[in-house]
Amino acid sequence: MIEAHSPELLYLLSGDPAELAEMLSQMRPVDVAEALSRLQPDAAAQLIKALPFDLVVQVFDEPELEGRAEIFAKIDAASAAPLLEAMSADQQADLFRELTPAERDRLAKPLDATTRSSLALLLRYPPEVAGGIMTTEAVTVASDWTVEKTLQYIVSVGGAKETVYTIYVLDAQQRMVHVVSLRQLMIADRNAKVLEVGPQRVPLTVKPTTDREDVARLLSKYNLLAVPVVDDDGKLLGIVTVDDVIDAIVRETTEDVQKFGGMEALDEPYMEISMWSMIKKRAGWLCALFLGEMLTATAMGYFEGEISKAVVLALFIPLIISSGGNSGSQATSLIIRAMALREVTLGDWWKVASRELPSGIVLGLILGAIGFIRIMLWQQFGWYNYGIHHTLVAVTVATALVGVVTFGSLAGSMLPFVLRRFNFDPASASAPFVATLVDVTGLIIYFSVAFIILRGTLL
Amino acid sequence: MIEAHSPELLYLLSGDPAELAEMLSQMRPVDVAEALSRLQPDAAAQLIKALPFDLVVQVFDEPELEGRAEIFAKIDAASAAPLLEAMSADQQADLFRELTPAERDRLAKPLDATTRSSLALLLRYPPEVAGGIMTTEAVTVASDWTVEKTLQYIVSVGGAKETVYTIYVLDAQQRMVHVVSLRQLMIADRNAKVLEVGPQRVPLTVKPTTDREDVARLLSKYNLLAVPVVDDDGKLLGIVTVDDVIDAIVRETTEDVQKFGGMEALDEPYMEISMWSMIKKRAGWLCALFLGEMLTATAMGYFEGEISKAVVLALFIPLIISSGGNSGSQATSLIIRAMALREVTLGDWWKVASRELPSGIVLGLILGAIGFIRIMLWQQFGWYNYGIHHTLVAVTVATALVGVVTFGSLAGSMLPFVLRRFNFDPASASAPFVATLVDVTGLIIYFSVAFIILRGTLL
Repeated sequence: MIEAHSPELLYLLSGDPAELAEMLSQMRPVDVAEALSRLQPDAAAQLIKALPFDLVVQVFDEPELEGRAEIFAKIDAASAAPLLEAMSADQQADLFRELTPAERDRLAKPLDATTRSSLALLLRYPPEVAGGIMTTEAVTVASDWTVEKTLQYIVSVGGAKETVYTIYVLDAQQRMVHVVSLRQLMIADRNAKVLEVGPQRVPLTVKPTTDREDVARLLSKYNLLAVPVVDDDGKLLGIVTVDDVIDAIVRETTEDVQKFGGMEALDEPYMEISMWSMIKKRAGWLCALFLGEMLTATAMGYFEGEISKAVVLALFIPLIISSGGNSGSQATSLIIRAMALREVTLGDWWKVASRELPSGIVLGLILGAIGFIRIMLWQQFGWYNYGIHHTLVAVTVATALVGVVTFGSLAGSMLPFVLRRFNFDPASASAPFVATLVDVTGLIIYFSVAFIILRGTLL
Repeated sequence: MIEAHSPELLYLLSGDPAELAEMLSQMRPVDVAEALSRLQPDAAAQLIKALPFDLVVQVFDEPELEGRAEIFAKIDAASAAPLLEAMSADQQADLFRELTPAERDRLAKPLDATTRSSLALLLRYPPEVAGGIMTTEAVTVASDWTVEKTLQYIVSVGGAKETVYTIYVLDAQQRMVHVVSLRQLMIADRNAKVLEVGPQRVPLTVKPTTDREDVARLLSKYNLLAVPVVDDDGKLLGIVTVDDVIDAIVRETTEDVQKFGGMEALDEPYMEISMWSMIKKRAGWLCALFLGEMLTATAMGYFEGEISKAVVLALFIPLIISSGGNSGSQATSLIIRAMALREVTLGDWWKVASRELPSGIVLGLILGAIGFIRIMLWQQFGWYNYGIHHTLVAVTVATALVGVVTFGSLAGSMLPFVLRRFNFDPASASAPFVATLVDVTGLIIYFSVAFIILRGTLL
């Protein structure tokens, strides 16, 4: 909440109620939600009283309405109960996740038994899995119904369901045996059994514990508008709809990008998170990386003698280690994304390594050649004097680059596998993480190469 | 195409056609498409002949079918025309984009005039904008139709349209004046005019040139199943459906992640791209970064005298410059993502800078403190000897860290703005790009601080 009071809304609030209703009927619920998000909770609660109930329900069904919990806290229990009852099940659950335990009790008490049990079911799962983003409001029909009866049923309940475009057919034991789309029903013979409409395949389902990323992949691959969530007995628990999946994909991507940048995911929009929260999210990884990077100082300590004998070697340290970090960052971003898309699985590590090793060598040879030419040119034209052994220095730098870039590609591509193997999130293999890993090793490679090539001359 | 021939499919191909048809009727079109993708184009073309026409159309409508163009090249023109004609408009366009000009001419010739003009329209736009991912197969009705007439019309054309769940109402001049959902129609009075059903708002639309990311944001925000694409006169050109938007989001994210890793987007799955293509995509940026990083060698050249006087300074070079790169990488990933989500726009650069400056200072102070303690502890316990001026060295490192980390946060957060300002993709502000930028500046900051603090003692 950046602005305490939005002047337009306060104007509306104080104006003619008929004018307000007219104006709001032109707005879509999500736009009303965004406008309300900019108000203080008590101002929002006050405005809500002036709005038609149906609109308020739609507004509260929008995840874009920030601070729903705070607004609810300002609404008396008598007005809150019907509103909560009318919200869609997945949004009820989202709201309850944000509430304090005391508020939960206050608001849950007046709810009817069905709502309470649906809420209890949804709250059992975290929002990262299908059970946590599903809704219980699916259109379900019995397997002996006809198409005509099903269509009439949809007309009668259509307003209250999250989606009416997919219909779930249950047998007498409430197990889901068939899925049919409204489109298929509409073009089917009205007297046919609903069970006979559409392709006769085993329906696609997910478990309540299926990761939301896998749910998204399934919906996207099969172009579904919703996917049913079933328990181990095949009973229908709920459905995950495509709009919730898009929200989940966007959130997941944001987290992955931020982790790849080398920090904890913010969980809030950049412009809205407080500066201290942001610093906390960044400081953790930054300190961890710093501690890791301290090993470079230790490694360099071992080579202090070499550096003092051949200061010229120090000049190329940033160039060499950063090249390894860059090639590592490339490899890591490729593998993290390929893993997220399930193009690459844990078992593919060997295939990946056998691509990254030759790629790294080629890339290293390219950079090595450029580095060699750079040193020889500068020496030739007198732009810098690398000493009498400049050719050997150039060879050292070029050779080290091949080694470091190859190591970078290999380490960068393998790190996500190692993390996944030990059940960490492969997305934690951030660019800075890889760079740190490669910096330490890169120094050792560089000075070892220097020791071999320059022994007896510079060293 | 990793495997030349899939044994199961070849078995099916040689077996009983009835058995094959039975088996395939259990498979979903996208799964058949994935199986065909693993075959050589001529084997795939051969198998297609044995499949029912309706299934083949559905399979060719799946973007998951790789090498569609190559398979089409193996099908004679007489069989290709009806198949192409039956494909959905957006997939026809996608296919044509992959074809060689000669193949385009061969396949376009037998198409009927309507298909050809729809194809010409779609091919006018690149796949990054609404016009390039839309389809022309929307359900459109005249504004004087009743609900009953509209529903009957949907029943009659339902099979041929991309989606029947959103109905577009056109006036006599073919301008889109109203959008109504099938759900709203079903629960409405059958004798009402279609124009009167649903909220009376100006419909949400996009232009054919609207970026696919903005289309995705609109669909996701308003929970739409499709969004209409209209020209400047308000005429309906086509619709973009939610499944195409999900594909677009996933592709866009992949590109952004790879760019952030410091390379060109691969445009192909990691496991499928040839090693040389991948090396080419990586080498460009790697060389550019290497050339930039060469400035570190130049910068270090200026400080060679200082280093030879105080080799101890060299020990902390990787630690200091990498810390700047890490904080820069964090800031860049935050801003790139916030820009992609439109949370931050070009005009917000000042707000961002005024958050990143204090954040950078705080983060720098934290790392500086750790660095100071590290040096003093090692000296204290005799783990390393930083010389008699070790306290001054520790102060130098700590001060340089504050400067470098602050500069990193600021540079990392501003780089995406600079790129966008000059019409480059802000996603090109990769972690390695930022690290390179900060490495060069970091060295100058470090040695300047050293010069001020250590003059008269070590230097």
